[in-house]
Amino acid sequence: MTERIDHTLRGRWTPTTGTLPPHALKWLRQRAGLPDVTTPARTPSVPATALSDAAHSALDAVVGPGYVRVDRDSRLGRAGGLSYLDLLRQRGDGTLAVPDAVVLPATPEQVVDVLRTCADHDVAVVPFGGGTSVVGGVAALRGDKAAVIALDLVRLDKLVSVDPLSRIAVVQAGVPAPEAERLLAPHGLTIGHVPQSYERATIGGFAATRSAGQASSGYGRFEDMVQGVRLATPVGEWRLGAAPASAAGPDLKQLVIGSEGAFGVITEVSVRVRPRPVVERYEGFVVDGWARGAAAVRSLAQGRVLADVTRLSDVDETEVSLALAGGWKTTALRAYLSARKVKDPCLLILGWHGQSEDEVRRRRRETLRGLRLVSLGRVLGEAWRHGRFNGPRQRDTLMDLGVCVETLETAAHWSRVSELRTAVRDAVTDALGRCIVMCHISHAYETGASLYFTVLAARDAGDPIGQWQVAKAAASEAIGGVGTISHHHAVGADHVPYLEAEIGGLGIEVLTSVKRTLDPTGVLNPGKLIQSGLASPG
Amino acid sequence: MTERIDHTLRGRWTPTTGTLPPHALKWLRQRAGLPDVTTPARTPSVPATALSDAAHSALDAVVGPGYVRVDRDSRLGRAGGLSYLDLLRQRGDGTLAVPDAVVLPATPEQVVDVLRTCADHDVAVVPFGGGTSVVGGVAALRGDKAAVIALDLVRLDKLVSVDPLSRIAVVQAGVPAPEAERLLAPHGLTIGHVPQSYERATIGGFAATRSAGQASSGYGRFEDMVQGVRLATPVGEWRLGAAPASAAGPDLKQLVIGSEGAFGVITEVSVRVRPRPVVERYEGFVVDGWARGAAAVRSLAQGRVLADVTRLSDVDETEVSLALAGGWKTTALRAYLSARKVKDPCLLILGWHGQSEDEVRRRRRETLRGLRLVSLGRVLGEAWRHGRFNGPRQRDTLMDLGVCVETLETAAHWSRVSELRTAVRDAVTDALGRCIVMCHISHAYETGASLYFTVLAARDAGDPIGQWQVAKAAASEAIGGVGTISHHHAVGADHVPYLEAEIGGLGIEVLTSVKRTLDPTGVLNPGKLIQSGLASPG
Repeated sequence: MTERIDHTLRGRWTPTTGTLPPHALKWLRQRAGLPDVTTPARTPSVPATALSDAAHSALDAVVGPGYVRVDRDSRLGRAGGLSYLDLLRQRGDGTLAVPDAVVLPATPEQVVDVLRTCADHDVAVVPFGGGTSVVGGVAALRGDKAAVIALDLVRLDKLVSVDPLSRIAVVQAGVPAPEAERLLAPHGLTIGHVPQSYERATIGGFAATRSAGQASSGYGRFEDMVQGVRLATPVGEWRLGAAPASAAGPDLKQLVIGSEGAFGVITEVSVRVRPRPVVERYEGFVVDGWARGAAAVRSLAQGRVLADVTRLSDVDETEVSLALAGGWKTTALRAYLSARKVKDPCLLILGWHGQSEDEVRRRRRETLRGLRLVSLGRVLGEAWRHGRFNGPRQRDTLMDLGVCVETLETAAHWSRVSELRTAVRDAVTDALGRCIVMCHISHAYETGASLYFTVLAARDAGDPIGQWQVAKAAASEAIGGVGTISHHHAVGADHVPYLEAEIGGLGIEVLTSVKRTLDPTGVLNPGKLIQSGLASPG
Repeated sequence: MTERIDHTLRGRWTPTTGTLPPHALKWLRQRAGLPDVTTPARTPSVPATALSDAAHSALDAVVGPGYVRVDRDSRLGRAGGLSYLDLLRQRGDGTLAVPDAVVLPATPEQVVDVLRTCADHDVAVVPFGGGTSVVGGVAALRGDKAAVIALDLVRLDKLVSVDPLSRIAVVQAGVPAPEAERLLAPHGLTIGHVPQSYERATIGGFAATRSAGQASSGYGRFEDMVQGVRLATPVGEWRLGAAPASAAGPDLKQLVIGSEGAFGVITEVSVRVRPRPVVERYEGFVVDGWARGAAAVRSLAQGRVLADVTRLSDVDETEVSLALAGGWKTTALRAYLSARKVKDPCLLILGWHGQSEDEVRRRRRETLRGLRLVSLGRVLGEAWRHGRFNGPRQRDTLMDLGVCVETLETAAHWSRVSELRTAVRDAVTDALGRCIVMCHISHAYETGASLYFTVLAARDAGDPIGQWQVAKAAASEAIGGVGTISHHHAVGADHVPYLEAEIGGLGIEVLTSVKRTLDPTGVLNPGKLIQSGLASPG
């Protein structure tokens, strides 16, 4: 038990080194105009806990001695998520919101009791799973409450049951994704949900944030997998999910999925599982030009022959990928594409999972039928697969080097996907000046696709937080009215100002009314999803 | 315009004749023990309208002269839906709830104004599309209001726009399904949503009731197709649907889909469309025994190789199908199955749609790979296709003959599907005594399937309504805790008492809070979905 918690904490905010090779650094410095300096992290300040003795005792009584922690490391380890702004604050820039305590319940019943206790003692509650939010979803905001706790779900770590005939597993919310796969492996089953946050993120977090994974073309978005939920609220427990599909009124599961801890704390998820793939095949291809690439992905989605992993990079992202390959590999790849008269190479990664070589071969044939692609073979596909979780790992290194590095994402219908890509690029570039803005489609649907942007620029040492806030605001304004403010990162605190434009004033009122019903005193995750207590976001 | 409305009314409740061949009647009489009598319909009584002159004038001002109708035929034509109990009441049994007026708005804006006017004048509103609800969803209940109108959406009859690149069509709510297909045909597109109510039902009704169609294995449930909705409420208009997928909080579209007119009136639906199929192939097969049949359908769903139409009848339904084939056909089919040593034949209809013979052949091969089925060939498949809408047509004939005839449906996870089929059969048989209870799976998912029951018995002439209410209650009790109270018929008025067991007290409270936000005075479809104004259904 203790080991698991320590592991969760250990090294979370410690800069790692050596994960970015020297040639990559050199290239990035030139391309993005980075200063040749290191800017090491400072230690953030941690205020004294504001948790009252009475609240502390009452919480102790619920979760047991030792599971209400007020030490500095515990609190600092749950102070926000993994956005660029979070990392800046962890490094001593701006103001870091630190929870007054970390509370570790052991059962779904204890979670309900913790929430009731917090409601009684005027304590705000931030549910905390893997802590991988990049939109301020786990910022320790207290709203108008006297104190705020991080409700760490790490002890809800069990595989509750498996129904192999119905292909459903009931998993507790605190189980990290790799652990869920490890628990399901003896049953020959997989969830197949692999977002970039996979290594740390939890099952409950996937449901709470309406997550989508890198293999969502094959396995579906997490909301497609959820069969049922168990939600702890200050007014009691709510269970949903009687059947594989239903017309018994609105699908209330969909009101819990994506509720981001503002309506309750998800304690268990019934999730659809599938047989573990026996064969996985990843390949790299190149299309000449973004428009052709997007058309190819659209034809796959609309023809319903998408690979399980389908990921199209734009020219800039492809350029970075080629450059980061390094040395003779970069030279060889460029020569190969030049010989094939590819002017504007866009990298397309395709991956298929199956129960047999034959099945994968058959599905691959269906995917590739009718497409005109330049194949780069399996090595590049495998390289992508092995590096798929590197992004978050490399960020600390980049931040040490004075880089402003962040991602943002959206989705739009096909007729507006390319227009939206250009609009966001232009907005970010206008705001930041010299920078790299790269983009990929990683989730395709019959009616549209996601757009995922990675931004790299020299950090404004004077006002690093303000620098990114301006760029993010510009991107969010460009998205408004064309796409969604988030395709899979959720609302958190950062997107609250933009939600009303997307779901309308009535949408905010409906969310507020649901919150008032389930969380009458407003202790749940203040300032996330909606500005609780207010009619509209302020 | 006028022709459309007249057509909507014409013959809606008039018993049709001659749609059931003599041999079928003879067989049914013997099998279900029907009396050899005819029981013709009586004329239901229609009370004087309770709509005040002030409300009438105010509504006239919104929709224009001639579009607020209080004549007997208009009102009687919107007095309830097509459930067995509705038909009994239309034939003079029990008490028929008749709307005080029929109001016909022409635009989404007029719908908002009608709702505001009704809120001002204490008038309840029952949204009315095709009037095909079989669960009391369009019963003209007034709740605690002074009067009740049927809000007929027939004039919202336009295809608003088509985005062929994104494969999205925006369709007004009053467009009947066949008309939507006719409007989309010049674009080479189809919605592909074909429930048994297809001939009358409307696009808005599909969304309001979370409909599933006979080809839902291929085209998805209607909720899967909906990209966006436009909802008129007494507090204004609500539009949703910015992107193909989103993590911008809970999917509020899913709160509107299945809201059954209790939260607002859907006026427009953005719906995913696909190229019209060029080739359709339907075939009949037989599996020996229900358990083997269900296992076969499960393997198709879990292997993701379902045919677009997949429908498995149990032994009783298969027996009825064979008997209704008639004469030498019945004899030949029985001999054919006997020669193949099929003891307990279960009919399996499979249908594939595609853009080419080659595509259909390929998909058919994938579906049939590994299954052990006895083929009955394409004639039987085509026969099913041609007769697929006959059920509703034949009910008036059966009712003239003194038959109690009704359907009910549910869904469960695979590990409980067969247990639930038996439980519902037993419950209905215990309640009705001598009867035919037949069942089929027509919607299969990776995690479970629907069960659709058709019940035939001799009508209790003394208390026909009570007779069915007892059987329906028994079936609903059997479903509770195992499956959903409705897989695709919705809640309406009939399932209100059973919803809390499925979604919990908190579920009812959440629905109530949403309703209070969007419909503060409670004019919208009183008594449907939830008992509005009460904390729990009474």
